[in-house]
Amino acid sequence: MWWRGPQRSVYGAINPDIDSERKAPSFDVEKLVNLLDGGADRTRTRRSVEHVINSDAVFSRENQYFLTLPERYEAAVKGAVHLRQKMKELGWIEDGPEMKFAFRILGGELAFGIHNEVFLPTITGLGTDAQIAKWVPLAKDYQIIGTYAQTELGHGTYLRGLETTATFDTSSKDFVLNTPEVSSMKWWPGDLGRSANHAVVLAQLYTQGMCRGMHAFIVQIRSLVDHSVLPGIKIGDIGPKMGFEHVDNGYLMMQNVHIPRENMLSRYSEVTSDGSYIKQGSDRINYITMVFTRVRIISRELVSALSKACVIAIRYSVVRRQSELKPGEMEAKILDYQTQQQKLLPQLATTFACHFMASSLEAFCNQVNVQIKTKGDASSLPELHALSAGLKAMISESCGAGVEVCRRACGGHGYSLLSGLPALYTRVVASCTYEGENTVMQLQTARFLMKCLTKVDCGEPLPQSVSYLSEPISLHCSAKEKMDFLKPFMYIEAYKHRAHRLIKDAGIKLQSLHQSGVEQYVAWNSTSVQLARATTAHCHYIVVKNFVETVKLEPEIQQVIKMLCDLYALTGILVNAGDFLYDGYMTGKQLDLVNASQLDLLALVRKDAVSIVDAFDYPDQQLNSAIGNYDGHAYQRLFEWAQKAPTNAKVNLAYEKYLKTQFQSAQSKL
Amino acid sequence: MWWRGPQRSVYGAINPDIDSERKAPSFDVEKLVNLLDGGADRTRTRRSVEHVINSDAVFSRENQYFLTLPERYEAAVKGAVHLRQKMKELGWIEDGPEMKFAFRILGGELAFGIHNEVFLPTITGLGTDAQIAKWVPLAKDYQIIGTYAQTELGHGTYLRGLETTATFDTSSKDFVLNTPEVSSMKWWPGDLGRSANHAVVLAQLYTQGMCRGMHAFIVQIRSLVDHSVLPGIKIGDIGPKMGFEHVDNGYLMMQNVHIPRENMLSRYSEVTSDGSYIKQGSDRINYITMVFTRVRIISRELVSALSKACVIAIRYSVVRRQSELKPGEMEAKILDYQTQQQKLLPQLATTFACHFMASSLEAFCNQVNVQIKTKGDASSLPELHALSAGLKAMISESCGAGVEVCRRACGGHGYSLLSGLPALYTRVVASCTYEGENTVMQLQTARFLMKCLTKVDCGEPLPQSVSYLSEPISLHCSAKEKMDFLKPFMYIEAYKHRAHRLIKDAGIKLQSLHQSGVEQYVAWNSTSVQLARATTAHCHYIVVKNFVETVKLEPEIQQVIKMLCDLYALTGILVNAGDFLYDGYMTGKQLDLVNASQLDLLALVRKDAVSIVDAFDYPDQQLNSAIGNYDGHAYQRLFEWAQKAPTNAKVNLAYEKYLKTQFQSAQSKL
Repeated sequence: MWWRGPQRSVYGAINPDIDSERKAPSFDVEKLVNLLDGGADRTRTRRSVEHVINSDAVFSRENQYFLTLPERYEAAVKGAVHLRQKMKELGWIEDGPEMKFAFRILGGELAFGIHNEVFLPTITGLGTDAQIAKWVPLAKDYQIIGTYAQTELGHGTYLRGLETTATFDTSSKDFVLNTPEVSSMKWWPGDLGRSANHAVVLAQLYTQGMCRGMHAFIVQIRSLVDHSVLPGIKIGDIGPKMGFEHVDNGYLMMQNVHIPRENMLSRYSEVTSDGSYIKQGSDRINYITMVFTRVRIISRELVSALSKACVIAIRYSVVRRQSELKPGEMEAKILDYQTQQQKLLPQLATTFACHFMASSLEAFCNQVNVQIKTKGDASSLPELHALSAGLKAMISESCGAGVEVCRRACGGHGYSLLSGLPALYTRVVASCTYEGENTVMQLQTARFLMKCLTKVDCGEPLPQSVSYLSEPISLHCSAKEKMDFLKPFMYIEAYKHRAHRLIKDAGIKLQSLHQSGVEQYVAWNSTSVQLARATTAHCHYIVVKNFVETVKLEPEIQQVIKMLCDLYALTGILVNAGDFLYDGYMTGKQLDLVNASQLDLLALVRKDAVSIVDAFDYPDQQLNSAIGNYDGHAYQRLFEWAQKAPTNAKVNLAYEKYLKTQFQSAQSKL
Repeated sequence: MWWRGPQRSVYGAINPDIDSERKAPSFDVEKLVNLLDGGADRTRTRRSVEHVINSDAVFSRENQYFLTLPERYEAAVKGAVHLRQKMKELGWIEDGPEMKFAFRILGGELAFGIHNEVFLPTITGLGTDAQIAKWVPLAKDYQIIGTYAQTELGHGTYLRGLETTATFDTSSKDFVLNTPEVSSMKWWPGDLGRSANHAVVLAQLYTQGMCRGMHAFIVQIRSLVDHSVLPGIKIGDIGPKMGFEHVDNGYLMMQNVHIPRENMLSRYSEVTSDGSYIKQGSDRINYITMVFTRVRIISRELVSALSKACVIAIRYSVVRRQSELKPGEMEAKILDYQTQQQKLLPQLATTFACHFMASSLEAFCNQVNVQIKTKGDASSLPELHALSAGLKAMISESCGAGVEVCRRACGGHGYSLLSGLPALYTRVVASCTYEGENTVMQLQTARFLMKCLTKVDCGEPLPQSVSYLSEPISLHCSAKEKMDFLKPFMYIEAYKHRAHRLIKDAGIKLQSLHQSGVEQYVAWNSTSVQLARATTAHCHYIVVKNFVETVKLEPEIQQVIKMLCDLYALTGILVNAGDFLYDGYMTGKQLDLVNASQLDLLALVRKDAVSIVDAFDYPDQQLNSAIGNYDGHAYQRLFEWAQKAPTNAKVNLAYEKYLKTQFQSAQSKL
């Protein structure tokens, strides 16, 4: 594939400024590619899938930044249908590695994301075997398109507050769905505004005059014959958003909409024809789906956004030259400025930290899943839930912030959509809100941490990820020179100490408020800022520790990832210096050592920076950036792309209407 | 005006949840309005201008979020021409208060921003009287539209690197302009892509075989007769951006374009007909224009963006109810959660801090301007330049971050364009780059600070804003209880100490590197991260001190702004805790006191929050937010606006093309 070729570019030779960066990497780039992919086999599969996609014009994103909203939507539907077709033709196995890679590569650009990733899994997870047999084949074949209608105009993360009702009607023996208020209309579901003909609707179930809580119902919302909206139903697009231009997020109101009794997803609870409500077993296992979704978001959406932003910004920073660094010499590459290194290279380190964390979390998920399915043992679920909630919050926060740092570090060109960076930002920040608003997530993790503190007091054993809460903790950092901070145990201990202290302090505050007679809910609210911080510190420790453990497992490529691990850990200490100095765990002098050591690392990582981002191995088509291509020809490509902007082709009506006469009158005066 | 009426709304009564917030403000809201306006007279004028604008359909932004890029551009041109017309009709004095208010209110939405704010002032500043007499009247009347072409594809803030050339041709007695490389084409100038027929082009002047540095030339680029691009010139739109959808930022290439000798702006330097170059006087005064532009950006663009975001987010946060705070009770307003207060209320305090800082900076500008013009005394210029550069960087950074905090605090709805928040963000962050990239600005200020340090060593007097560098500084914070941190001198001293230390430490590092034989430019680069931090600390101190001084001047409304001042200062200490703890200036215990005091302040400011944002006195039309209106009817308005989205009116081509057949085949299977 040409974009990996060392000497070729559509503009002739590779830009010499970027070419020289690749001359002598300190590590084997292909080995790092394999590590990131999870093995050389997976690298091969991924590349073959990329080849299929990139050589298919339907998937081309060439003019994406110029399309209107309806054009974006249409292209997304076309692509989704085409991909499904193509996968059949190529004989890719359902949910096999090729298909997974294809969804990962294209998923963010195609329609039916909610259909594939939420509607379908919900039926599989909550439906009976008969329901699965009926709906899943149709859905997999896009003969029906379904949305998942949970969030309402007035309620998001707080599910118990949802207002939509599904009332069992004993005379007609079916459910009647209603949207009682404006605030209770479904709002945000993807694929709803224009595509879906079915919806899984989350509603409060009422039978025999009693509310039975939230349940899921399959509701047909549009005609299969002519796609018209069915009686009693109101649907629309919720209008333009900051990103997700291709998605038809919609609203849904229902007025006395009757659906058959069989349309309640009934694996775990059922309403019989006389209206009796029967709960069968626990739907706790369904939490696993939610956790899986969160983990998938971390690796697929968050880490990939930050890694792309790093590729673009770092490549651009070696072809952009600005100002004299050394008087009288050629202008310097901007990546040679310490301030630019300080912006970008920690983001690169963060990408690796989050990537490895996502892998470990996924492994933990799988393990818990097996425990539950084989032994019915769900004892690890609370720990998994707490970890995934807190990490989703922390990682979405730092990937969002990181992408924006990369974007701004490209100056004016980072503000052009053609750089690819604005789209990465406006996309990734959405994840701070969806699948659980970050602050709510942090406080859920904090609740788990507080329970663990109680266990410590009672001498009960703790889950592995929080076992440090019952361990003795060092009170002072023992570092004496800057090299000491390149020893992983040194910074792991620091992060552990910080998490330990912040969690305990939050616990102490809660307890003392409680003891002074403050009601529990007031105490919780009054401590919530501190609790959220405690969660962040806990997750930060977990991420650092996990990074260090990964480094140990990879002897072949250790040096480069160790360097990134050190950079991640030391940057975190500097950014959160107050936490480490607060109780004298570190001294100002030690912080100076961290500082010095971090600056040394910047200079080291700088040398390999281009090769490291090359190892993310994105084809240019996936970056879709005029300034981040492999060949380094940023200016030529910006110019070429800009000329294609539709505004350059159209007649200037504003001139004709408002300016022409005035301008002509100036002719005689000049 | 209805939106200020206490009991009315297009949806009936004011939302009771927001209404109750306004019952008993602790201060006189109108007095705060006046303070923010700079006097009751100015409030009256502003409101009358707003009335004119809001009752004119041409200026309506009702469907703004639904417009395509060409529609946005056309509306912006139409509005600009209409406003000029209207101002004439109403007899508003050129540059009088009404006109200034009108530009402030509408400026961000209209075309010809660069024409009015850069092209015109450049001619006035750098042109001879004859040039001014020739060009300014035509430009004021929009008979010509000019752009300001400085930035190139390959060069931004580093002006000396610009590559465009203007060579005096002794045979034809005129200048020949050229774009030697792709990287030297002009890139980004507003009004260039589609509107302008003239440009002030910044180019390297060559006469008699010598380069005379950057000069400004008026170049006609399009025909006045039919708007066609003139020979030798290539122009286009640079394509879509993250914001500024209505602006036709463009590119410009010139190949042997001849312009008359009189078109070089010649107040300070001239080329005679024989090609001699004459420099007459210093163009140093021209820096004042640049400084004025920066200061105007702070108050007009940065502070206003953050204040609007605060209004929207805080109003929404008292009508949004989510989760049980107290078990069994009604769901709580989200502003009653401590975590939400911690997000939003410091942004409110920041708005005031930046507003007052911008006012003082403007006053300082005017004073320096007078000094120069009346006494030829430009001695304060370096101080003014350093202050404005550093403050522009700091304030754009914190307003950008603040707007984003507000946006995210509105959850999913903050992601909808209809909330008005995404547009505020994508707009305000541009200012981190334009008018001087922030890091470059910080380092310019740092250079000034380092010079001041040298002066201290030599016993020379210092400019007022940095005089603290030669004063004795306290080594330990004297606070003993949390109330101590509500004493302004307590936190002013802390900020002073921090700035003092960071500046001195940077100086020491520079010096020691230098003494150890490191070349000066390497030493500077190796210290630049620290230097940028020192600038931030310096500016932070200036802003806090200025806020305190403003509070003292306003006895009538003191309590509420004192509370915001305290909140601003204490939040800054918490966020930058490491800086205050590092050398033992504060202890961990004292930081706990700051924390406790800040939480108390949050609860206090919470009570007045809605009234405080009401005092920004934005008519709903200016906020253009479905969730931030005065009446608090967020859900109804979101629903109403969403229904107007054009996607809801158009035929769904994607269905017809890609889905219809499949869906119909499902009909028989269900």
